[in-house]
Amino acid sequence: MAGDAPGCAGTHLFGDEGLIERKLSGEQVWRGRFLDVRCDTIVQRDGHTATREYIVHPGAVMVVPLLDDGRLVLERQFRYPLGRVLLEFPAGKIDPGESIQVCAERELAEETGYLASEWARACAIHNACAYSDEAIEIWFARGLRLGERRLDAGELIDVCLMTEAELDALAGRGELTDVKTLVGLQWLQKWRGGEWTLDWVAGRQP
Amino acid sequence: MAGDAPGCAGTHLFGDEGLIERKLSGEQVWRGRFLDVRCDTIVQRDGHTATREYIVHPGAVMVVPLLDDGRLVLERQFRYPLGRVLLEFPAGKIDPGESIQVCAERELAEETGYLASEWARACAIHNACAYSDEAIEIWFARGLRLGERRLDAGELIDVCLMTEAELDALAGRGELTDVKTLVGLQWLQKWRGGEWTLDWVAGRQP
Repeated sequence: MAGDAPGCAGTHLFGDEGLIERKLSGEQVWRGRFLDVRCDTIVQRDGHTATREYIVHPGAVMVVPLLDDGRLVLERQFRYPLGRVLLEFPAGKIDPGESIQVCAERELAEETGYLASEWARACAIHNACAYSDEAIEIWFARGLRLGERRLDAGELIDVCLMTEAELDALAGRGELTDVKTLVGLQWLQKWRGGEWTLDWVAGRQP
Repeated sequence: MAGDAPGCAGTHLFGDEGLIERKLSGEQVWRGRFLDVRCDTIVQRDGHTATREYIVHPGAVMVVPLLDDGRLVLERQFRYPLGRVLLEFPAGKIDPGESIQVCAERELAEETGYLASEWARACAIHNACAYSDEAIEIWFARGLRLGERRLDAGELIDVCLMTEAELDALAGRGELTDVKTLVGLQWLQKWRGGEWTLDWVAGRQP
C-alpha cells in the first residue's frame, strides 16, 4: 500500500508515484493544419514499456454568457466528426501567446457579437485525457451588450438564446451531449445555488 | 432566417440544413495501435470547401458505481498526455461487437473488481466534437459486491472510495478536471435530487 491520495480510501496498490509513466522517446507521426499527432515510448516504474499515442492541442476557452434577463447565449454548429449539429456554449482555440481572458472575449465577440463587462473563471477541464493534452478553460461573462459578429469565411454558426430551465431539460433527456456545455450548465447551477463560487473581474474590451 | 431549432430564439442565419458539411473525399492519414486519424475534404452549402481532421474512435463507457453506504468507486490513473494523475470514474473503450452494458460490466469488474446487480443508462456525451467522433456512454451501477480485479499487464490503476460531498468539493475548487467524471457527478446529483431520472435493469453477470 503506497496510498498518497488524500481523502481517498481504497486499494492504493501503486500510489501516485507508482502510477507515473516516463518518456523514453517520441516523435510527431502526423501534422495537419490543426492536428499534431505524437507517438511516444514510455516506461513504467516496474520497467514495463508501452507506446502512448496522443494529440498536442493549444488549449481552448469556453464562455457561459449570461444575458441580463437570465437567458444564456448558445450556438448551433455542425460537428463534422459526429455528422450532426450540436448545441454548445461559445468556444474556441487559444492563439499562440494569447491570454485566456483575451481569447474568451475574442471568441465570444467573433462568434456571437456579444461584449461583456464582467468575467469570471470557473475551472479548467480535460476532455480527452486518454489521447489529447487539451484543456478547456471555462469562463462566465455577464453585463452583455450586442456588438457586431465577425464570423470567418466558412465558419457557420447560429446563435441561440435559451433559459437555464430549457438547457437543463435537454440535459436531463440526454439531448445536450457536448461535454463542455454540460459542465458549463453544472457550474451555472452550482453558482446560482450558492454552492460554487465565481470571482468576477472587469472585461478588457472597451 | 432559416430557424429550425425548436425552443431556441436567436440569430438563425443558416438553419440546421444550412450548417451541414458534406464529404467530398477523405483518407486515413495515420493509424497507430490506438489512434485512427482521418483528413476529409468537405463542402458547405454555399460551395465553400475546407478540410476536417479528426480521430475515429470506437466509443467508450463510463460507470458511476454506487456502494450501499452511499460512497462512490473512483480510480486514480496517470494520464500520459497530461503528465499527471487524474481522478476518474471507471471507463474503457468498447470492444468490436460488444454491447454497451456488457462493456460497462466488464470494465468495472476488470478495473475495480466490483460486480453490480443493477444498472442504468444515463446519457451519451461527446467529449471532443471538434476532432473526434468519440461518444462516452454514462451508466450507473448499484448493488455492488467486490470480486477480483483483473488488471492487464501495464495497466496501473488505484481504486478510490469517496463520498459525493468529497467529490463535489473537489469539483467546486476546480480540482476534478476529467469531463466524464464531472458529468457523472452532475447526473448523480440530479438523480439523487429527483430532477433527472434513471431506469434500472438487472446486471447480466452471474
